[in-house]
Amino acid sequence: MGDDATADDNAVGVVSLVGSGPGDPELLTVKARRLLDDADVVLHDKLPGPEVLDTIPDEKREDVGKRAGGEWTPQEYTNHRLVELARAGNHVVRLKGGDPFVFGRGGEEMEHLASEGIPFEVVPGITSAVGGPGVAGIPVTHRDHASSVSFVTGHEDPTKTESAVEWDALAATGGTIVVLMGVGKLPEYTAALRAAGMDPDTPVALVERATWPGMTVATGTLDDIVAVRDAEGINPPAITVIGEVAATRKRVLEFLRDRPDGDTGATDA
Amino acid sequence: MGDDATADDNAVGVVSLVGSGPGDPELLTVKARRLLDDADVVLHDKLPGPEVLDTIPDEKREDVGKRAGGEWTPQEYTNHRLVELARAGNHVVRLKGGDPFVFGRGGEEMEHLASEGIPFEVVPGITSAVGGPGVAGIPVTHRDHASSVSFVTGHEDPTKTESAVEWDALAATGGTIVVLMGVGKLPEYTAALRAAGMDPDTPVALVERATWPGMTVATGTLDDIVAVRDAEGINPPAITVIGEVAATRKRVLEFLRDRPDGDTGATDA
Repeated sequence: MGDDATADDNAVGVVSLVGSGPGDPELLTVKARRLLDDADVVLHDKLPGPEVLDTIPDEKREDVGKRAGGEWTPQEYTNHRLVELARAGNHVVRLKGGDPFVFGRGGEEMEHLASEGIPFEVVPGITSAVGGPGVAGIPVTHRDHASSVSFVTGHEDPTKTESAVEWDALAATGGTIVVLMGVGKLPEYTAALRAAGMDPDTPVALVERATWPGMTVATGTLDDIVAVRDAEGINPPAITVIGEVAATRKRVLEFLRDRPDGDTGATDA
Repeated sequence: MGDDATADDNAVGVVSLVGSGPGDPELLTVKARRLLDDADVVLHDKLPGPEVLDTIPDEKREDVGKRAGGEWTPQEYTNHRLVELARAGNHVVRLKGGDPFVFGRGGEEMEHLASEGIPFEVVPGITSAVGGPGVAGIPVTHRDHASSVSFVTGHEDPTKTESAVEWDALAATGGTIVVLMGVGKLPEYTAALRAAGMDPDTPVALVERATWPGMTVATGTLDDIVAVRDAEGINPPAITVIGEVAATRKRVLEFLRDRPDGDTGATDA
């Protein structure tokens, strides 16, 4: 790992904010692959997934997902460490799961770097909100079924009065809704969408560990998807796709090749 | 180009529905790069952009974006040609700009292949709706500013009574709105959003030719962005980003490195 001992005191290093994609190492971009190979240090958490992280030499990896004591690392520590490493002259890759700017706090890290005068670049990655459904045979938009798609995070609690997610408005768009990190709060937001008038027969799909080993897909309706989740044992990390497009998978599954390990369709409800 | 003369009569070929990403060849995925190199035939239109298309040998390229007579190719022709080439034993890459399933008609092509019994795989790409704003220093979500992001296409006409895009609902989400192919109808949908009660001071950014040579970015507000578009001469293809996140760019631009050619910030309004 690059540290002060290897630093070039004459130049501030560049920080590359890099998206890893959903987890399959072949879904890294060519540029991400090059930067991971060339960087002095790679700061990451667990979200890029085990297969991507295994492609990075241990000596340049620095896990900021947890502290030694088992606590989650505050964002402030990550921000501080990025600046510290760059000032020591390192080329730093900050590797984020999916895309850095889709619920990844990449925006906060970018603004912190700029405020500290650290040069940076942005390398987009495939967000699991698109790629996860995609490899499962679910198009997030469709000319016949969905003229818009909205992404939200399930970490918002829709029962809080201060929830920032407007489930009524999302239901009224008539488009596909994709919920990232959507397993835990599934009962709350499916109830919110039904209360907003969404058809209880609306197709819903859960994509667990999208493109990771052991990927699993379960399908149902807005009315029964919580029961499906419990019966199939769907666990985080998973994506929820709500809308007519979620029904596409069953129509195409027989001919879908190169599915990730474990995605046999056998667990589809 | 693989055709009947090179066909293996004993096996139906696989069709890979592949996203090219926004246009920079380094934003192809590792898998897309491998498939483009290995495929017998690559069916494409203009949307992957000149730099990506230039990396594919001429002899395997087949442009289905236009017919010889200059007419747009009907979707039916593309569907038919994919089946024909696969039945002749070719490994076919159907290369789509961005992601195959974000306003790309990839869903229709996938369903057609399945209905004809042709095996296929889906290889997601970086949608320009995320990657375009990203390389311009604009995060589509931000913990402080946007807890959802919605993608729509500007090819929908909001003045038609049959328009499928619910601009009122999109405005009510309070999240970021990204309009793909959003230059021509900019006056109509910015008016629709203002009529829906969106603050006229809401920041808006236009990203033209995202990650292509000659990328240009222009920024303004919901109230003045049409005038900015005209003054700066922003032309298709371009993406519109509407929401507080669009203001991020100005705060970070000084330290944004590795901008595509032409993105000097000089054209920012």
